[in-house]
Amino acid sequence: MGQTEVKQLVDDLANGRLTTSDLTAALTASGSADLGDTTLDLDRRRRCGFPEVVYAEGKSSETLLRIVGSLLESNQSVLATRVSLEKSEALLGAYPNGRYHPTARTFRIDIGPRDVRGRVTVVTAGTSDLPIAEEVRETLDWMGVETTMVHDVGVAGPHRLVYQLDKLRRADAIVVVAGMEGALPSIVGGHVDCPVIAVPTSVGYGASLGGIAALLGMLNSCAANVVVVNIDGGFKGGYVAGTIARRRHHHEVPS
Amino acid sequence: MGQTEVKQLVDDLANGRLTTSDLTAALTASGSADLGDTTLDLDRRRRCGFPEVVYAEGKSSETLLRIVGSLLESNQSVLATRVSLEKSEALLGAYPNGRYHPTARTFRIDIGPRDVRGRVTVVTAGTSDLPIAEEVRETLDWMGVETTMVHDVGVAGPHRLVYQLDKLRRADAIVVVAGMEGALPSIVGGHVDCPVIAVPTSVGYGASLGGIAALLGMLNSCAANVVVVNIDGGFKGGYVAGTIARRRHHHEVPS
Amino acid sequence: MGQTEVKQLVDDLANGRLTTSDLTAALTASGSADLGDTTLDLDRRRRCGFPEVVYAEGKSSETLLRIVGSLLESNQSVLATRVSLEKSEALLGAYPNGRYHPTARTFRIDIGPRDVRGRVTVVTAGTSDLPIAEEVRETLDWMGVETTMVHDVGVAGPHRLVYQLDKLRRADAIVVVAGMEGALPSIVGGHVDCPVIAVPTSVGYGASLGGIAALLGMLNSCAANVVVVNIDGGFKGGYVAGTIARRRHHHEVPS
Amino acid sequence: MGQTEVKQLVDDLANGRLTTSDLTAALTASGSADLGDTTLDLDRRRRCGFPEVVYAEGKSSETLLRIVGSLLESNQSVLATRVSLEKSEALLGAYPNGRYHPTARTFRIDIGPRDVRGRVTVVTAGTSDLPIAEEVRETLDWMGVETTMVHDVGVAGPHRLVYQLDKLRRADAIVVVAGMEGALPSIVGGHVDCPVIAVPTSVGYGASLGGIAALLGMLNSCAANVVVVNIDGGFKGGYVAGTIARRRHHHEVPS
Amino acid sequence: MGQTEVKQLVDDLANGRLTTSDLTAALTASGSADLGDTTLDLDRRRRCGFPEVVYAEGKSSETLLRIVGSLLESNQSVLATRVSLEKSEALLGAYPNGRYHPTARTFRIDIGPRDVRGRVTVVTAGTSDLPIAEEVRETLDWMGVETTMVHDVGVAGPHRLVYQLDKLRRADAIVVVAGMEGALPSIVGGHVDCPVIAVPTSVGYGASLGGIAALLGMLNSCAANVVVVNIDGGFKGGYVAGTIARRRHHHEVPS
Amino acid sequence: MGQTEVKQLVDDLANGRLTTSDLTAALTASGSADLGDTTLDLDRRRRCGFPEVVYAEGKSSETLLRIVGSLLESNQSVLATRVSLEKSEALLGAYPNGRYHPTARTFRIDIGPRDVRGRVTVVTAGTSDLPIAEEVRETLDWMGVETTMVHDVGVAGPHRLVYQLDKLRRADAIVVVAGMEGALPSIVGGHVDCPVIAVPTSVGYGASLGGIAALLGMLNSCAANVVVVNIDGGFKGGYVAGTIARRRHHHEVPS
Amino acid sequence: MGQTEVKQLVDDLANGRLTTSDLTAALTASGSADLGDTTLDLDRRRRCGFPEVVYAEGKSSETLLRIVGSLLESNQSVLATRVSLEKSEALLGAYPNGRYHPTARTFRIDIGPRDVRGRVTVVTAGTSDLPIAEEVRETLDWMGVETTMVHDVGVAGPHRLVYQLDKLRRADAIVVVAGMEGALPSIVGGHVDCPVIAVPTSVGYGASLGGIAALLGMLNSCAANVVVVNIDGGFKGGYVAGTIARRRHHHEVPS
Amino acid sequence: MGQTEVKQLVDDLANGRLTTSDLTAALTASGSADLGDTTLDLDRRRRCGFPEVVYAEGKSSETLLRIVGSLLESNQSVLATRVSLEKSEALLGAYPNGRYHPTARTFRIDIGPRDVRGRVTVVTAGTSDLPIAEEVRETLDWMGVETTMVHDVGVAGPHRLVYQLDKLRRADAIVVVAGMEGALPSIVGGHVDCPVIAVPTSVGYGASLGGIAALLGMLNSCAANVVVVNIDGGFKGGYVAGTIARRRHHHEVPS
Repeated sequence: MGQTEVKQLVDDLANGRLTTSDLTAALTASGSADLGDTTLDLDRRRRCGFPEVVYAEGKSSETLLRIVGSLLESNQSVLATRVSLEKSEALLGAYPNGRYHPTARTFRIDIGPRDVRGRVTVVTAGTSDLPIAEEVRETLDWMGVETTMVHDVGVAGPHRLVYQLDKLRRADAIVVVAGMEGALPSIVGGHVDCPVIAVPTSVGYGASLGGIAALLGMLNSCAANVVVVNIDGGFKGGYVAGTIARRRHHHEVPS
Repeated sequence: MGQTEVKQLVDDLANGRLTTSDLTAALTASGSADLGDTTLDLDRRRRCGFPEVVYAEGKSSETLLRIVGSLLESNQSVLATRVSLEKSEALLGAYPNGRYHPTARTFRIDIGPRDVRGRVTVVTAGTSDLPIAEEVRETLDWMGVETTMVHDVGVAGPHRLVYQLDKLRRADAIVVVAGMEGALPSIVGGHVDCPVIAVPTSVGYGASLGGIAALLGMLNSCAANVVVVNIDGGFKGGYVAGTIARRRHHHEVPS
Repeated sequence: MGQTEVKQLVDDLANGRLTTSDLTAALTASGSADLGDTTLDLDRRRRCGFPEVVYAEGKSSETLLRIVGSLLESNQSVLATRVSLEKSEALLGAYPNGRYHPTARTFRIDIGPRDVRGRVTVVTAGTSDLPIAEEVRETLDWMGVETTMVHDVGVAGPHRLVYQLDKLRRADAIVVVAGMEGALPSIVGGHVDCPVIAVPTSVGYGASLGGIAALLGMLNSCAANVVVVNIDGGFKGGYVAGTIARRRHHHEVPS
Repeated sequence: MGQTEVKQLVDDLANGRLTTSDLTAALTASGSADLGDTTLDLDRRRRCGFPEVVYAEGKSSETLLRIVGSLLESNQSVLATRVSLEKSEALLGAYPNGRYHPTARTFRIDIGPRDVRGRVTVVTAGTSDLPIAEEVRETLDWMGVETTMVHDVGVAGPHRLVYQLDKLRRADAIVVVAGMEGALPSIVGGHVDCPVIAVPTSVGYGASLGGIAALLGMLNSCAANVVVVNIDGGFKGGYVAGTIARRRHHHEVPS
Repeated sequence: MGQTEVKQLVDDLANGRLTTSDLTAALTASGSADLGDTTLDLDRRRRCGFPEVVYAEGKSSETLLRIVGSLLESNQSVLATRVSLEKSEALLGAYPNGRYHPTARTFRIDIGPRDVRGRVTVVTAGTSDLPIAEEVRETLDWMGVETTMVHDVGVAGPHRLVYQLDKLRRADAIVVVAGMEGALPSIVGGHVDCPVIAVPTSVGYGASLGGIAALLGMLNSCAANVVVVNIDGGFKGGYVAGTIARRRHHHEVPS
Repeated sequence: MGQTEVKQLVDDLANGRLTTSDLTAALTASGSADLGDTTLDLDRRRRCGFPEVVYAEGKSSETLLRIVGSLLESNQSVLATRVSLEKSEALLGAYPNGRYHPTARTFRIDIGPRDVRGRVTVVTAGTSDLPIAEEVRETLDWMGVETTMVHDVGVAGPHRLVYQLDKLRRADAIVVVAGMEGALPSIVGGHVDCPVIAVPTSVGYGASLGGIAALLGMLNSCAANVVVVNIDGGFKGGYVAGTIARRRHHHEVPS
Repeated sequence: MGQTEVKQLVDDLANGRLTTSDLTAALTASGSADLGDTTLDLDRRRRCGFPEVVYAEGKSSETLLRIVGSLLESNQSVLATRVSLEKSEALLGAYPNGRYHPTARTFRIDIGPRDVRGRVTVVTAGTSDLPIAEEVRETLDWMGVETTMVHDVGVAGPHRLVYQLDKLRRADAIVVVAGMEGALPSIVGGHVDCPVIAVPTSVGYGASLGGIAALLGMLNSCAANVVVVNIDGGFKGGYVAGTIARRRHHHEVPS
Repeated sequence: MGQTEVKQLVDDLANGRLTTSDLTAALTASGSADLGDTTLDLDRRRRCGFPEVVYAEGKSSETLLRIVGSLLESNQSVLATRVSLEKSEALLGAYPNGRYHPTARTFRIDIGPRDVRGRVTVVTAGTSDLPIAEEVRETLDWMGVETTMVHDVGVAGPHRLVYQLDKLRRADAIVVVAGMEGALPSIVGGHVDCPVIAVPTSVGYGASLGGIAALLGMLNSCAANVVVVNIDGGFKGGYVAGTIARRRHHHEVPS
């Protein structure tokens, strides 16, 4: 809680808009739900703009069901990532209106219609990067951002990218998904004036070191507008691009 | 050159607005200046919004002087990074109106007054991260972006950050500069709804591995809005934040 | 055997309290049981306060049964870690009064009632860290230490930790279990005056490098009261915390 | 600020012990001093038991002087680590009653007499580990903890350690400082029932990898009572040992 | 498209050999086939001499079938690498004249008879390197290059290599396939005057680090004529050797 | 072939003891058997004292059978390492007098009675190191060296090793097999005057990095008589120890 | 010495063209010069086409002078790499007709006029890669190969490379010198049909890891015609390209 | 102290050969000299055959002088390694009969004439490996072992090694010193029947990683008789070879 909010609360007390027990409650509110082995952050949407997203790996189906239930109760939409086929069955059993994407391994429940704002182009270096690109796309779709896909334009056939420049230039942000040497974000970055979010993938073998080669390549990109997320980090790549794109099309001018 | 531009050029020829030699010239324009050991990208500003920025490490003073001269000739402003004190003297000798910042190690020549657009908050974990934070700030200043500095609010004294929340929440983008365990971007990210650009620094010793520990920490951040640049990558951290901030406050709605 | 003990033995001989063959026996006592491929350290409890704990990985069920039998014969309690479900069945078949915890993968046989001394709080960054946290808790329970669990208070929702500060402040030692960027121990450390034992976990993917990122983050913690154990080292994290907590509540003032 | 403290403050307001502006002040107190590029944590002593310790590397003499001045003003004692000879001269010039230890590279100003509580034994594997061991000792001395030094008892001459067992067994905690293969903490751990804080050093060459070999060895220690800090982390090794030792000899039984 | 080609096109327009729409078409030709998640580079053969080779890992059988179909439609031969047995069945079902090599894991469809040009000798250090060597051989065979195999002449039995020197000396290029310490390329390189392409393999255990040891050894080769490809990179090793060998026996003197 | 041997051959020719075709045959003898994908080094025993030992990993049963057959034909004994249970069945089917050891994963066929010479003591740090220790023992047994096993005397129970000193001191060479921190070879080395061959194992988890921690520890051993082999390198550890031990008990004084 | 050569020698003896002492001399010729701490390989030119090249790092000026003298005595040309300015002075003092290139750090003495054969294009990603590119060029010049330089066409300004395609397409081999992300060889490879030798450089900072990032990127190149040499391996990059280029323009068809 | 020795002492007491205070003294003898920051192991020679060798790095001249004095007092010879020129001056000032070798950086004082026993051949791959090879040679000389040097026979000129085979075959043990790819020990190992001690050096650049490449190559050697020591570990390489060689020529047959 920031300085301004605390001052406002004490003012409210001084002005009789709050009782002392209201004040105590406000100052010590947990903003979260205690689900036993999980403390769900119900205040996330207020602070960060979107509800807490669920990382399903290492969580049991029972835990996932408890979390989804708690989010829906507080009227928040649901996005879970890295959901195995088996866990998706438990979730779809309980929530048949949910949407499971088997390539992206995401599970979603949208709450009411969302306004669509902002445009993101998602680029893959090769066909094998598809699962991560789909995770990016599902995330953006859940956030209410329009996406354009440009597939398989890796650097060994450089004309393929040039042919698609128009799709790159009208984006608010671009997500580039690439394994092996991870060179594509630099090339894309050199053609555009928007931020490029580079998502290294574990596609490759031998000295690709499970994606480390692509990650290092992207971190050392000589293009000034390239930032990087974790290997196979499709969710985060999409999330940050979506944040940039949505905020560009809707903001109060700060005072 | 994208599809649209090529089509436009051939149309211009068909319509008599261009001769065939104009067309050849346009299609084969180098967009760059040949300076011997350097091929300066003079077209960068058109494509990417800002002129090519000069990485001074490993370049001689002579080469730097040639590049600066060429940029000014084509009426582009100058930013050079990682400029040693010795090289700065050669540059200031030739361009006394330039600005050298010894902590940031940047050299700048601004061209005419720039409109200031967008707000970025720059946060450091500790006082030793100062040089990189100053490189961030100089970059943003050169781009025409307003900056707010929040210094030394590392996680071991967590109340220090909370005290400054208001400065974080009104930014278009936040740059967090941190060495050692690199935990600060995650904390900042959990408090705000704008993108957080994490800049790991080489501050630390032993298992900090020259900044690798901070880099890995930031890549694995559990906050969804954190992206990462290279270790000690102050320029890029500032550049991307500036791009996000400026574009948020000035854009044509894409058709 | 220390200087003092040797001198005492020779004195006892001089004073007729020992025969020479008693002395030889005492000086050359093995303090261990020869079980073929295992040399069980039966003297561990005397030297270190607790019996030898059994690392079950890479040991056959037959070897485990021999070790458990030998410990019980010498009236020592049993704790085995990293016990697979399959091996647990062999152990429970022979010792039905044993306790197997399938999440923690521990097998225990307690000997008589133990006095409970000291308080340790165990904190997890996320729900996926649960198995290691349960190994910590089982270890502390076996040692006779009271535990309080605080689950899923990772740094992206920083208010969740603040809400639980009271549980942290009354502990003799705190064990923090965290994967990904491993930032939580630093935050906890900044709030308390007791030692914090950081246990990195292999939760995460890509650049988490199987827990290396969390480990490095914790080693570089800017909080002065944080020490670290091996990745997924729940047993050791619990053991050291338990040692600190129990010794705090029971000690002779050294002369 | 924990739940209990917030509740107490609101109660105090309700009971007239505080005015609303007192309450606002208390809730929004920074607990820190703004020194420009530094935000000094003046509340650290209250939360963690000791004042903030200053990491001098990467800080200018001017910054260090500002910090020392601010600590003394608020009546807190001073410990700065990794202080170069050159910076020590600036500090001693301003504070002639300070104490600089050139081997440990520490600078201290103690405030009034401190009660001495607790006993820590500091063990080195070799003579080359001396500078780090001296940093440990200075830290403990500043904290008011009694220290015993046991030097150069590395494992290649195992009888040297056995000869000193009595010094190990009467400690509240032991700090073992070792480079190369870092085996000594395991041996020490096998002889005692108190916690062993292992401090890897960068002593060695080739495959010691600047201390990584010793660090990994200590993290994989088969002794259950060994925890680890950063390479060359003498300050932290001493600090945690001191915390354990002092708290063992002085504590209120928690309610 | 190079300068010369663009100029030629505009000349053709000026001379009436092209219409403006022909020109636009030529300048904006994609040179590729859009297969949904794949953008097949149909222009590769013109630029690089051979059709695009298909990396089958991470691609579904459906995607592979689409790619093979598209290549054949444009009358290009097919080579796919890292094809699992299961995927080979789908491919052979649709294209019974294809050739699947289970050790090399390659699938090929040759188009018409190919002239055979150039000679490459393929050398293995040990029998366990066979699968990669077979991938080399299949690639060369597809390219129309004559191969000689020299098996299992690792350095621990140095006379075995000397016995085969004649086979080495008459090659246009040599591919050496070796795991473990990867020393063989240096020895081969010291005996011949042609380029040696070193292919490290993941054969080995422990400190071979999945082929990293062999890779590093080859990169540090003291023989001046040794170049390196990725670990287990049989395809690329063969391809580059084949390029060198074929071009040596057929080239127009460049103007 | 050394200088002396070549000179002797030409002398023999000059003296009529050889014909020119004998000479050519001797100078160009392959000393190996061509088995298709394998070139078996039949000259190894003459040069190095023992026949070529077969590394079974990555070789098919068919290849192994061909190699074993070829060795027996030339009257050489057989040792194959890393033989899976499945391959052992093929080998035992063809050679029922062979000996397969399932823990060591070795397959042997001894040729006639061997004189036993030399004594090696094999020490393990823990019970989980048993498979590698058994590979050491089988290798030594095949070489005709007497072995003594000392099991599970890791450093956390240091008295266990001291109790066995007599077994260490009468060896010609000692092999120490240890995972985790790999500290045991240093301790053993400090007690004896013979060479200590350290075999790191992959026993451990987390920061043991698959045996890298133990390997680095052993390479940095402060004991002067410790040398190291690859992780899990039981065969080589045994082979070198056996070479040292046998040669100590049987040698012509070199002229 | 290969089989064919040995047979020829014995035939010569049989036919009276050699005496037995001639034969012994031929079979035991050292092919090298013993210079005390150096064994110079005088036979290298016969086997490999060029004399031994001297790696000057770690050699004293005295040793270098001995080596240069010995090469000249046997009428071989001289190339030394990594020659410091100080050592160059000693060499130029003794051999004033030598040529020292301070950027490339090479020292050469050419013997008589060399026929120039083959064409290599050398490409740099950035101006800071110049020293390594000059080492490439000097090596090629010494070998008698024509070179074309294309400077500073890194991927962030992709039009710069396209502008120079004609220079790439007429080469027999291309050497690409690049640091940072090392992406340029892949782009170049996608445009041409000749082999591309990628030379990673240590240009960069932070996560460039002294050139490891560029090296990994190049090893994982998705272009099929890219091979790699050591970081900063300008000599080897030039040497292999020169070998390919010269052999393409001059060869006997092997029988 | 082993079992046998303890029993003997108690027997001696029982038989009146010792008093009880003699016994206490014998059982608690430190076997070392307390020099303040150093505990010198004076018992090393009895246990291990040679006095403690001094690692001079990180020790002051004062400490070194104390250690040398103490060794000489107890009539033990002196070997110090990694002695800088500056420290050598202090040592030679005090002990003018000492011998300092500036290339090997060793300081020695021999005590009386030593019998020379055993033969070791020391091989270098290149001239730059000379300093480490000289450290090997000085160590062996101090131990009283005869050495033969074979210089600069790296694998790129393989005939150079073959020419020296006779020198290799008459050794009791061989030390091979090599940097870069570290391939030479494997080749040497394939020619001989004695143990080969491989010493990797830090000679090389780029991907040699300061000697790691050579180290890994040697650990993965396919020759069965190769063992490895630390990078630049000339002392240990010589020490172990000397131990093997001396013990081969002088031993009581163990009972």
